Amino acid sequence: MPQETRTVAIVGCGVIGMGWATLFLSRGLKVILSDPAEGGKDALERYLDQARPFFEEHGNFEQVATNYEFVSDIVPRLPEAEFVQENGPESQEFKIGLMKTLDEHTRPGVVIASSSSGLPSSTFIQQCKRDPSRILVGHPFNPPHLIPLVEVVPHPGTSEHSISATMKFYQSLGKRPILLHDEVPGFVSNRLQAAINNEAYSLISRGIVSAEDLDLAITQGPGLRWAVTGPIATNALGGGGGPSGFAQRIERLGPSIRAWEDDILKHRFDWSDKSLSALQDSFKKGLGGTDWSKLVEERDSVLMQLLAAKSKTT
Amino acid sequence: MPQETRTVAIVGCGVIGMGWATLFLSRGLKVILSDPAEGGKDALERYLDQARPFFEEHGNFEQVATNYEFVSDIVPRLPEAEFVQENGPESQEFKIGLMKTLDEHTRPGVVIASSSSGLPSSTFIQQCKRDPSRILVGHPFNPPHLIPLVEVVPHPGTSEHSISATMKFYQSLGKRPILLHDEVPGFVSNRLQAAINNEAYSLISRGIVSAEDLDLAITQGPGLRWAVTGPIATNALGGGGGPSGFAQRIERLGPSIRAWEDDILKHRFDWSDKSLSALQDSFKKGLGGTDWSKLVEERDSVLMQLLAAKSKTT
Repeated sequence: MPQETRTVAIVGCGVIGMGWATLFLSRGLKVILSDPAEGGKDALERYLDQARPFFEEHGNFEQVATNYEFVSDIVPRLPEAEFVQENGPESQEFKIGLMKTLDEHTRPGVVIASSSSGLPSSTFIQQCKRDPSRILVGHPFNPPHLIPLVEVVPHPGTSEHSISATMKFYQSLGKRPILLHDEVPGFVSNRLQAAINNEAYSLISRGIVSAEDLDLAITQGPGLRWAVTGPIATNALGGGGGPSGFAQRIERLGPSIRAWEDDILKHRFDWSDKSLSALQDSFKKGLGGTDWSKLVEERDSVLMQLLAAKSKTT
Repeated sequence: MPQETRTVAIVGCGVIGMGWATLFLSRGLKVILSDPAEGGKDALERYLDQARPFFEEHGNFEQVATNYEFVSDIVPRLPEAEFVQENGPESQEFKIGLMKTLDEHTRPGVVIASSSSGLPSSTFIQQCKRDPSRILVGHPFNPPHLIPLVEVVPHPGTSEHSISATMKFYQSLGKRPILLHDEVPGFVSNRLQAAINNEAYSLISRGIVSAEDLDLAITQGPGLRWAVTGPIATNALGGGGGPSGFAQRIERLGPSIRAWEDDILKHRFDWSDKSLSALQDSFKKGLGGTDWSKLVEERDSVLMQLLAAKSKTT
């Protein structure tokens, strides 16, 4: 499949769908998109225009960024698709109905990947009578054209062929797919983010640190390293690297870490109105004045330079 | 104090002490160091040599990188210091004795900062009879000359003057200090790392994902964003940015996140021999063949480019 995929259907064109469209277009694919929201086509045009520096790295903006059709109804166009990327709302009920339709109208053997950010596909394929074995989750990260990670999460009935075709297709686009061996809720990356966020919310709402300084505690610290070495390799380097570095780190710091874990558990963020309100207050005070459009531009500019620097090392 | 600080004493010269030395030297300060380990001076020379690209960004390697004295006994030299950075082992008992000595021999008013990575200073100042009000934690991140974050954690008796002098001194070196308002064990950044690590260990030991893919789930995903936008700003952007983005994100995704949190809690990494052994096995299989020296070189090269890209945005 990967070699032949020239046309992709994007079902649901919010922030994630627009990012997928940017990626697919930049690689020379044709894209057919739909979204029920008003002004969807204008939003896409603005998004593509903002991504101009990204297109320019990959070729000619004018030539590829216009190779799409924004349609009001995707259903009659599904038979043209050689890959379907679904980006509907994160609702089980909604996805059950949508997947039924996609399965009915997509050609046999064509993979249907859901951008579901935590809902396993086995929870929304029960009405797919034609071929649920070509359905799986392909969970991207925002912005999908810049962040290489995709979590590929098959359900127990997904075929090996669909899994390997999906991995190869994403790889052919320059993505870095990882394969999960079990459909855990939240998948891997959002669970890791939920773990860090809970403690972040707790520290802020308890007044230990401001929302602004909490962010600096990542962006000026471990966040810089995590762009290069993941949690496990970072642990191993903290133990001096080498084959025994990880074991040493776990052994030497284990007792301290377990004591911190106990304290973290004791003070878990409880989602009470009081805690939420303290969290929101700190957010408004420290980050309320942020220029978010400027931050997105800066983030994307730094991301592109970071990815370029990383690509030179491997 | 900041303007006049020309001489810093570094007590304990392992990986962290050597990184501090690199930073202080690169900014033109004189450094007096000591370490009880054999071969400490040679290790420092190698470290400084490896950091040559860093020195070259800040000036003349030959001129500044030799402006140190590695001494066998720091005690008689302490009166020369205008700032003391302590990097002894992370042991309460050890630090109690060391802090007593440092307090006795350091000039009045000179700040003594401990690189303690999670032990609050109130737990190791009880034998400091002279002036414990100038003692606090200044917790850096590896490698200290490249990672800007320093957690400044005063104990309840630390003077306001010592706190502000320390913040200003670190800022004058290009560091990004954050001030904690309470001495929580593990401080902020290591608690955040402990939270993510526990879930990482759990996912790997349960076979959901390999150690290698777990690291990719960060370095190819959220880790790239966290170099620019912290957990809170990332949440706000996920909610579409704007002043209400953060609130929207919490409200809309809150129920999903709480379900993931419950599942995370249920499957917490338990540090049992069985779980540890499954974790180590996956580490050996996926990351055992890593060239760690090469990884450090690559990390530092990417870090310098990343920091340069970030400095252009602010």
